[in-house]
Amino acid sequence: MKIVKSVAEMSEIARRLKREGKTVGFVPTMGYLHEGHLALMERARKENDVAVASIFVNPLQFGPNEDYETYPRDFERDKRLAEGAGIGYLFHPDVKEMYPRELSVTVKVVKRTDVLCGRSRPGHFDGVAVVLLKLFSIIQPTRAYFGMKDAQQAAIVGALIEDLNLPVELVPVETVREKDGLAKSSRNVRLTPEEREEAPHLYRSLLLGKSLVEKGEKDPEKIAGAIKDYLTENVSGEIDYVEVLAYPELVPLPEIRGRVILAVAVKFSNARLIDNIVLETGE
Amino acid sequence: MKIVKSVAEMSEIARRLKREGKTVGFVPTMGYLHEGHLALMERARKENDVAVASIFVNPLQFGPNEDYETYPRDFERDKRLAEGAGIGYLFHPDVKEMYPRELSVTVKVVKRTDVLCGRSRPGHFDGVAVVLLKLFSIIQPTRAYFGMKDAQQAAIVGALIEDLNLPVELVPVETVREKDGLAKSSRNVRLTPEEREEAPHLYRSLLLGKSLVEKGEKDPEKIAGAIKDYLTENVSGEIDYVEVLAYPELVPLPEIRGRVILAVAVKFSNARLIDNIVLETGE
Repeated sequence: MKIVKSVAEMSEIARRLKREGKTVGFVPTMGYLHEGHLALMERARKENDVAVASIFVNPLQFGPNEDYETYPRDFERDKRLAEGAGIGYLFHPDVKEMYPRELSVTVKVVKRTDVLCGRSRPGHFDGVAVVLLKLFSIIQPTRAYFGMKDAQQAAIVGALIEDLNLPVELVPVETVREKDGLAKSSRNVRLTPEEREEAPHLYRSLLLGKSLVEKGEKDPEKIAGAIKDYLTENVSGEIDYVEVLAYPELVPLPEIRGRVILAVAVKFSNARLIDNIVLETGE
Repeated sequence: MKIVKSVAEMSEIARRLKREGKTVGFVPTMGYLHEGHLALMERARKENDVAVASIFVNPLQFGPNEDYETYPRDFERDKRLAEGAGIGYLFHPDVKEMYPRELSVTVKVVKRTDVLCGRSRPGHFDGVAVVLLKLFSIIQPTRAYFGMKDAQQAAIVGALIEDLNLPVELVPVETVREKDGLAKSSRNVRLTPEEREEAPHLYRSLLLGKSLVEKGEKDPEKIAGAIKDYLTENVSGEIDYVEVLAYPELVPLPEIRGRVILAVAVKFSNARLIDNIVLETGE
């Protein structure tokens, strides 16, 4: 595995791979890798000639009161894990390399953002869009792999790719979970032992919602209400949101039909956890 | 020359050219081609294996009171001219093909826009940025050719490419002029015979400014003032702006040094004409 820190070198490698007709699978990450990332990387490796991952904690997608400074980082460990997952090139630029000067251009995501995590993170997805546009330009991937744990991000990346005709295929990959159901996340390390015990209830609340849908419940508000009640009873953290929306449009549904996302976010003392499931409910 | 109307087909052609290792020169236009465009096309043809041009009157870059509906169009003539200039693929999508649904993503150009034409055309360069991002994604050119008559556009495209690391090289091409100095423009057809007589004074006013710089004048305001006086005396149209700025940053200069643009815009009865020259003044 080659570690690349400069944009110019990564671009040159990408051009060479293109010239050689190689397919490139790309996994953008902010590092502190866990099995969720590794599943993306292994998939990228399996489905393409070359797998490229990036590790870049993107300041643009953090709000002023968010955890950019304290976001967990461990590059030495990440390196080993990425290599083990079959990554051929690990792109690891510093902030000056990615943002050498003030941007003349900004991107604004105007749909799919005022719900779920976007509601409490104004500008977050604008920052995600800018860094992904840059990374896609530098790496020119054939396919880009995104975990469905960040379902809103995947929906927005899908819109970005479609709207701007980006020559890359979005591959959404199912959330990887601990044995007890907790979705893998870099932020899980910040849970207290008690919170860690409670955390699997996020997924269980979603499974409860799913079972209601399967039993024929058509009212999104009733399903959200049941999930909320379950969480209130079982979790000490503060419920940030419980939402039932059309996917990937992320708009409210008058009744359950088509593709639907059930999504929750809970703020624990030192970590905000999110989880979701997407259901195909037929008509 | 092949005419391509669908995004999917154009993308497929672009992918094939890439696979074959061909360099692609791209000339984006809004049609109604004149010698200025043809100079770009010939240059694209000469410097690349394949030349691609687009003809698309982009509604996003026209303001509500601008001339989108009446912008001159003549595709049959354009076709002949493009073919004569050595274009291999002429991309001519309709609006539905380029904008099949409301965009989820918008681009805002936040620098280099509040001067020159940007001042009176709010949002214009945002629309230019979106359509170029789309066209670059679809056509994946090695080089993109822009006429220096739209110097502000070239400066903004340069910023877009740098900021987003777009894998395309910007090639600015000198303004093509009539024998009497008038810069070629699709809008020149809208001048009355009297205005057409006056129109070369735009370029002459710039040459006057240039001669002042060459004589050692360092004060941008004095140069702008002299240009303005000349235009007031020689042209019946309304002066929209006369500006002397750093290029390509498009910011005011305390004194003449480095690369400088002298730029003018004049509103005639039915056409607003622009012209500029960029000078290397040393330092």
